[in-house]
Amino acid sequence: MKKEQHAKLKIIPLGGLEQIGMNITAFEYEDSIIVVDCGLSFPEDDMLGIDLVVPDVTYLKNNLDRVKGFFITHGHEDHIGAIPYVLREVNVPVYATKLTIGIIEHKLREHNMLTKVKRKVVKYGQHINLGCFRVEFIRTNHSIADAAALAIYSPAGTVVHTGDFKVDYTPVFGGAIDLQRFGELGKKGVLALMCDSTNAERPGHTSSERTVGRTFDNLFADYANTRIIVATFASNVDRVQQIINSAYKYKRKVVVEGRSMVNIITIASELGYLNIPDNTLIDIEQIKNYPDEQTVLITTGSQGESMAALSRMAANLHKKVVIKPGDTVIFSSNPIPGNEKAVSRVINELSMKGANVIFQDAHVSGHACQEDIKLIYSLVKPMYAIPVHGEYRHLKAQARIAEELGIARDNIFILSSGDVLELSEEGAAVTGEVPVGDVLVDGLGVGDVGNIVLRDRQHLAEDGIIIVVLTLEGGSGQVLAGPDIVTRGFVYVRGSESLMDEARQVLEETVDHCMEKNITDWGKIKTEIKDSLGEFVWRKTKRRPMIMPIIMEV
Amino acid sequence: MKKEQHAKLKIIPLGGLEQIGMNITAFEYEDSIIVVDCGLSFPEDDMLGIDLVVPDVTYLKNNLDRVKGFFITHGHEDHIGAIPYVLREVNVPVYATKLTIGIIEHKLREHNMLTKVKRKVVKYGQHINLGCFRVEFIRTNHSIADAAALAIYSPAGTVVHTGDFKVDYTPVFGGAIDLQRFGELGKKGVLALMCDSTNAERPGHTSSERTVGRTFDNLFADYANTRIIVATFASNVDRVQQIINSAYKYKRKVVVEGRSMVNIITIASELGYLNIPDNTLIDIEQIKNYPDEQTVLITTGSQGESMAALSRMAANLHKKVVIKPGDTVIFSSNPIPGNEKAVSRVINELSMKGANVIFQDAHVSGHACQEDIKLIYSLVKPMYAIPVHGEYRHLKAQARIAEELGIARDNIFILSSGDVLELSEEGAAVTGEVPVGDVLVDGLGVGDVGNIVLRDRQHLAEDGIIIVVLTLEGGSGQVLAGPDIVTRGFVYVRGSESLMDEARQVLEETVDHCMEKNITDWGKIKTEIKDSLGEFVWRKTKRRPMIMPIIMEV
Repeated sequence: MKKEQHAKLKIIPLGGLEQIGMNITAFEYEDSIIVVDCGLSFPEDDMLGIDLVVPDVTYLKNNLDRVKGFFITHGHEDHIGAIPYVLREVNVPVYATKLTIGIIEHKLREHNMLTKVKRKVVKYGQHINLGCFRVEFIRTNHSIADAAALAIYSPAGTVVHTGDFKVDYTPVFGGAIDLQRFGELGKKGVLALMCDSTNAERPGHTSSERTVGRTFDNLFADYANTRIIVATFASNVDRVQQIINSAYKYKRKVVVEGRSMVNIITIASELGYLNIPDNTLIDIEQIKNYPDEQTVLITTGSQGESMAALSRMAANLHKKVVIKPGDTVIFSSNPIPGNEKAVSRVINELSMKGANVIFQDAHVSGHACQEDIKLIYSLVKPMYAIPVHGEYRHLKAQARIAEELGIARDNIFILSSGDVLELSEEGAAVTGEVPVGDVLVDGLGVGDVGNIVLRDRQHLAEDGIIIVVLTLEGGSGQVLAGPDIVTRGFVYVRGSESLMDEARQVLEETVDHCMEKNITDWGKIKTEIKDSLGEFVWRKTKRRPMIMPIIMEV
Repeated sequence: MKKEQHAKLKIIPLGGLEQIGMNITAFEYEDSIIVVDCGLSFPEDDMLGIDLVVPDVTYLKNNLDRVKGFFITHGHEDHIGAIPYVLREVNVPVYATKLTIGIIEHKLREHNMLTKVKRKVVKYGQHINLGCFRVEFIRTNHSIADAAALAIYSPAGTVVHTGDFKVDYTPVFGGAIDLQRFGELGKKGVLALMCDSTNAERPGHTSSERTVGRTFDNLFADYANTRIIVATFASNVDRVQQIINSAYKYKRKVVVEGRSMVNIITIASELGYLNIPDNTLIDIEQIKNYPDEQTVLITTGSQGESMAALSRMAANLHKKVVIKPGDTVIFSSNPIPGNEKAVSRVINELSMKGANVIFQDAHVSGHACQEDIKLIYSLVKPMYAIPVHGEYRHLKAQARIAEELGIARDNIFILSSGDVLELSEEGAAVTGEVPVGDVLVDGLGVGDVGNIVLRDRQHLAEDGIIIVVLTLEGGSGQVLAGPDIVTRGFVYVRGSESLMDEARQVLEETVDHCMEKNITDWGKIKTEIKDSLGEFVWRKTKRRPMIMPIIMEV
């Protein structure tokens, strides 16, 4: 008689087609599914007009009765941003630490969903039982407070998911990452480690957030006679804390500017994650009552985002703050790949207004570098390595680290979205795939813009549109009016009249030709118009505008 | 009686609105104008569908009889790319060193302009007399061979223009920068120094191009058992030389791939700037006859350009080369700001195919860093400093260096395009401005796409277009057909029928309303349609597609 075999654990990343951002991973064991994180991503350059991208969770919807809950590792958009969209359709409880829940609640409130979603605040060390799973929250450090790693216990074994993390022995707020617990779990035996790969290409260790505080102190001393403006990430509460500390030390008042910054600081203060000395924070309206050298502005816009406060100041579009010669502007951030040019534009604009722009040394990363990753592997000593979080090149870099540390190449899995990895102590393999995809959010529309619409937008963006209108007589099919031509985004009409006159002539010949040949099928007439006008325009201009014939019948 | 005063020298940058790329500067003294460089720039992100940007040279056209010639410092696109466009209208001789003229001739041939433009090859140390000016070519180093600085002698004094340069004591081809001549000129007295600012934010010295050769040797030794693919800038002939040297040393055959790479290598070989050992270069068709570890591919695409050879290999679109597990791909380049994401995409795609991607340490810059800039200032000791080449932040950084070196702040000029700087030993000031601007090249059209067309393209790209067609009876103004709606790039119709039905109803009400009120003016009817439909669509979708009413009369 065959020995009964235990079921395997399934790990299924659901994060859309691009793999970057949109962190959302399903863990499945028999009748139980839990989900880690629920992030959004920002549109790629070719997703014209799109505001956000959220994951297609068809797989969860198809298994609704088995989905038990969401576990969120920390409060960044690429881990929580899709909650208002996904939980409309998969309404199960959300578990996270206090600040993370605070940020999620703010988001739910904006979407009028606060009463519709169950939340539960979890403490470090606490275990949650859901179906076949037990999940433990473990303290880590990151560029946002209250980050957690998860130990996910299943009958097939334990998976440790680091979330996004760094190793900070001297964090600004709260304790250091609970390395002991990682070691203890490792000693007991860990089936798989899912570890943050963002900085897996960078050698060495990631510096403590506290080192930035010393940089601020130095900068505040160096620029004691100027106004100081610091741009940083809204969600980096510890960074804001350190700017406030330096401001207090150097007797400056602090103004916080930018909607997302004000929101996060409000939440963090209310929940006790930020310690602001009395009489330090002032309203932006009061800033004029203080001399420049007694003020600090903490602002959004460190990524050059065109609508953020700093960009508006740089472009002279900010209502309350005018950049002046002598101002010191500190970028407490690094440009996220893709934002370099926008950041440089803001630096140029600030420099042109006479500001002294400091964009080096006032930032540390929130992600573990190579030596930190090695530390976690050495504590956890997993059977399988599943690098997570990062572009393919970063996952690959972590895979190389795992291999260096002695994990067999066959036990390292770089998963694509939709892959179903089945694993147990007996073995692991990708055994199937589930549907995944990008759901595009444009204004109020969720998923109503797809590939056809995007392709049309790209076509329109490239060379514009030529509309050809024609009115035919019902029955006879004779031309009653037109063909008329209207263009947008093609060429400016002044100076191109002769081109348009020739185009009209081409069209008239085409329509005459159709009439002569007794072509009355509208589809055929439209095709003839597209072909002849398209060929003419390409020959004359080497451009391919969208050509759109419209026929009306009277 | 008043002593006769000497005229002043005028320096006028003509490089378009954005200042970056498009290097072109007019020097004017009484009845003589000479121009240094004639570059193009690549379109900004918001210049949808645009291929190239060239400078508006209205000022030169208005002073055609005074323009004597163009002096080109080196063969990069941002210094020569606009020649075929500008010289159509300002047809004067072009002076440059041998390789630079070779590259210009290739470009002119592509534009069928070779017989129309006079070229003259100039040697280092040679002086050219044109009108009131004498121009001397001085040897420098850069990331392309045959780069020159210019000493421009005028009755008002001498201006030294460095072009783009670095200080390379051990260049791969030709001699090191002629520092003695810079010193000699300085000793005689230099009115103004126009010095490359690209790396003015970077401390230290720029490394010799030769150091990259050593890196290649090491990499070729490390990856002796794999095929090696090296991506670099097509125009960096010295880099290509060093790759060929390493290939020869390690007994590999070399394939050159990518149109611009093949072009430049052909020109450089013909003119003697590249020394390729016999039996080293093979045709891409022959590569299959050699084992992987005996081949090197040198390719374009180091900036992630979507149509370049490496990008096509990475995306599996290349007809001759398939990336295989084990391939070593070396990026011998740094991403130019704005290209980071595209480069990263190519790295990811290559990694997914199993290639080992090396993107660090196989590149040095072609521009002088801070200490090199200080060296040139210390040799030339100019009265006035005019930082050139770079974004505003870089010009500003050089201005700070000049000030550190003792040049009075009032003698440092950061010019904007169109500024007329008048200078002599008696003083210098911006005294006026001339018209400048961006001329957009789109397909065959030069200047026929302007702001209105770009704005329309952006509008179309963002939210698409809704076209409303209506046929009215002439005379009565009664509706004979329509209103019909067609959309492109707005929403995909399946699933949005009800939205479209409602929109049609809104339109019918609007048209009925116009009829009732006896509104027969087409402009007014169109405005009513735009307003009512626009308001409806915004309310329903929070999007603002372009709304385009078209009325026909029968």
